[in-house]
Amino acid sequence: MNEEYIDKVKSLIEQKEADQVRESLLGLHPADIAELCNELSLDNARFIYRLLDNETAADVLIEMDEEARKEFLEILPSETIAKRFVDYMDTDDAVDIMRDLDEDKQEEILSHIEDIEQAGDIVDLLKYDKDTAGGLMGTEMVTVNENWSMPECLKEMRQQAEDLDEIYYVYVIDDDERLRGVFPLKKMITSPSVSKVKHVMKKDPISVRVDTAIDDVVQTIEKYDLVAVPVVDSIGRLVGQITVDDVMDEVREQSERDYQLASGLSQDVETDDNVLRQTTARLPWLLIGMLGGIGNSMILGNFGTTFAAHPEMALYIPLIGGTGGNVGTQSSALVVQGLANSSLDTKDTFKQILKETVVASINATIISLLVYLYNFIRFGATATVTYSVSISLFAVVMFASIFGTFVPMTLEKLKIDPAIATGPFISITNDIIGMMLYMGITVLLS
Amino acid sequence: MNEEYIDKVKSLIEQKEADQVRESLLGLHPADIAELCNELSLDNARFIYRLLDNETAADVLIEMDEEARKEFLEILPSETIAKRFVDYMDTDDAVDIMRDLDEDKQEEILSHIEDIEQAGDIVDLLKYDKDTAGGLMGTEMVTVNENWSMPECLKEMRQQAEDLDEIYYVYVIDDDERLRGVFPLKKMITSPSVSKVKHVMKKDPISVRVDTAIDDVVQTIEKYDLVAVPVVDSIGRLVGQITVDDVMDEVREQSERDYQLASGLSQDVETDDNVLRQTTARLPWLLIGMLGGIGNSMILGNFGTTFAAHPEMALYIPLIGGTGGNVGTQSSALVVQGLANSSLDTKDTFKQILKETVVASINATIISLLVYLYNFIRFGATATVTYSVSISLFAVVMFASIFGTFVPMTLEKLKIDPAIATGPFISITNDIIGMMLYMGITVLLS
Repeated sequence: MNEEYIDKVKSLIEQKEADQVRESLLGLHPADIAELCNELSLDNARFIYRLLDNETAADVLIEMDEEARKEFLEILPSETIAKRFVDYMDTDDAVDIMRDLDEDKQEEILSHIEDIEQAGDIVDLLKYDKDTAGGLMGTEMVTVNENWSMPECLKEMRQQAEDLDEIYYVYVIDDDERLRGVFPLKKMITSPSVSKVKHVMKKDPISVRVDTAIDDVVQTIEKYDLVAVPVVDSIGRLVGQITVDDVMDEVREQSERDYQLASGLSQDVETDDNVLRQTTARLPWLLIGMLGGIGNSMILGNFGTTFAAHPEMALYIPLIGGTGGNVGTQSSALVVQGLANSSLDTKDTFKQILKETVVASINATIISLLVYLYNFIRFGATATVTYSVSISLFAVVMFASIFGTFVPMTLEKLKIDPAIATGPFISITNDIIGMMLYMGITVLLS
Repeated sequence: MNEEYIDKVKSLIEQKEADQVRESLLGLHPADIAELCNELSLDNARFIYRLLDNETAADVLIEMDEEARKEFLEILPSETIAKRFVDYMDTDDAVDIMRDLDEDKQEEILSHIEDIEQAGDIVDLLKYDKDTAGGLMGTEMVTVNENWSMPECLKEMRQQAEDLDEIYYVYVIDDDERLRGVFPLKKMITSPSVSKVKHVMKKDPISVRVDTAIDDVVQTIEKYDLVAVPVVDSIGRLVGQITVDDVMDEVREQSERDYQLASGLSQDVETDDNVLRQTTARLPWLLIGMLGGIGNSMILGNFGTTFAAHPEMALYIPLIGGTGGNVGTQSSALVVQGLANSSLDTKDTFKQILKETVVASINATIISLLVYLYNFIRFGATATVTYSVSISLFAVVMFASIFGTFVPMTLEKLKIDPAIATGPFISITNDIIGMMLYMGITVLLS
């Protein structure tokens, strides 16, 4: 997708050279056409859509940027969306797209879907919370009955596979539709002559429940290196399948979300979002930071006499505040990541704080000693600032480490996303507590 | 893996009840056994390993934590590693494990591998840079010749599939071993009677080259929703395959790395790493932060007369420094993520800075005005601090935004990982520049 190619397509569209545009799209993967459409204006993208066959148009729509897709769907009538797109999509993709639309439009589209079974599946899927396995799964999969013979099974599979893009696993169910096993495709090639499905299948397959949280689904797929995981309802009936491509998007989104929260961005935002969205994503933390800064100025305002007696104290405000912020960010980032990839558990809170205390005391000792040496040379051994800055630094590093560990672990226990504790919140609190420690210790020593 | 179960296994091991331990492991997935071994002592883990069949032991080893695995391999003789583990592993997993060992041990292990072909593959794979497709790929895959008939093809596939855990795609090559197409497994079921492979295969499959950077491999798999991607050499010969489970690990590691760098952790570190590793991961940034803080104290030291004339200036040091840090972190995090997921390109540097300037001026105006109002009430309209703090805040927000955008984009252009620019580096620079702006503006106004 280089600029030259995009410009060529643009000028062909302007000249209304439908045939030449169609030709230039030949052989392109839907994901590439989607990338092209993201770069084009709404009208030009629509021009391209008209040239695509239904199958491709549906694939391209799924691959488009969420924002561009939303705009695009808004200008299309519901009937077109139903007949040109949703009819050709897997149910999980259809549900993804429907969730972006308001309820009236959803119902309109559903009423235009010709395949009643698919419409029913979409209605069912829309009911699930989007943060659970039910909200992520699709209903397209190949299922066979455990009591079938291999020839019966192959015949049925052949029929079901016609409508699917890819098959990764074949699921085996009993007469009550409960999941009993998985039939690896490999077996199709290596053991085609065995009598009954239930003797070939892998029993007790790993599965998730419709109400399993997405984070846990991601962990299951990652841990067991699966390419898809079956989803069962509360009595064990097979109701859907989640594939690895959807899970990979989740892994990326989840890590990006933690990073964004740690960086003080309050909502999912990208560089290509508009100015308004960018401002609203950033301003909240900046305002909280501002309140923290003003609060700090009020605290420091109470120590006018200390500053008057030791004017050089002011010089170390950035050092104390900055170090507290850095230490707190490190500690909380470690905890947030540990909780996210399950290498850390809330029941280990005490153990983790203990370990953190040891690490903190090493770092605190090294930093305080170095700063002491510097101040010893700059101000001499007897100056209040020489002692007070180093003792404060030590106290701040210890506090920031323990606080930065304790807060995210407590939030996780309270079932609040610990990622919101990282970044600005921890830095601001540490900044304020740091100043109070600094001033308090200085007053005590002078 | 609950604690009760782990305790039960521990006590069984202590009583040397091999049969009962073996029984309690029955039906457990290798990933679960690995999780158990991570929790056990080295000796207890070894006890468990002795009870496992070779196939399972190899799988468990792959799934173990890197640290625990390394310790474990150190106590095992090379011959055992070769015959009990490496012989039963896919080449990509074997290479992963070999890379952790020193060269002497690598050679010893290689000399003990019985399957000469596998040993040769491992030697070849070890030569590739571990950050390229060649370093991530395995050589296990099913390949067929484009000129074979379907029955020939099925027979060959049956044979090759015997040794493999999973098959996702069957690759089609020509007589010169060049990759010509992919044969989706689905076709095996839906079109078994066609004459020649080349008429059934999907032509021009998406592939990567051995020297493709891992980040690009990840993007290819994500963009095209693949479960595996074939790897070709410089003349198009098929040399290996990368599967989605390895790529998913990369996605997580890549995002975690960015987040860690942004949080001031200089190397990959986890909450369960030991104290020494934790300290060395954190201390470098803390020391740089300390130098920044000392530098700042030297700058502020030059403005003694300004502080003497306006002692209330000191109160706003945390506000100015903190806001600069917050803004810079936000801007650089957005850019780093945009570059990581390819929604941003270095050729857009100017455009991005322009946009950032608009967002920054909105945020800067709002914050400066609010702080102005506060200081208007606290100190009155005519006090130097009332003007100076707000003007400085405005300048700091503008500088931090533009700097936070410019630096990571420039690093990316210079092929340096832009993630190192986020977090501490940006905060420290902004802190220092912020103080200089604050002091400079105050001097100009008073």
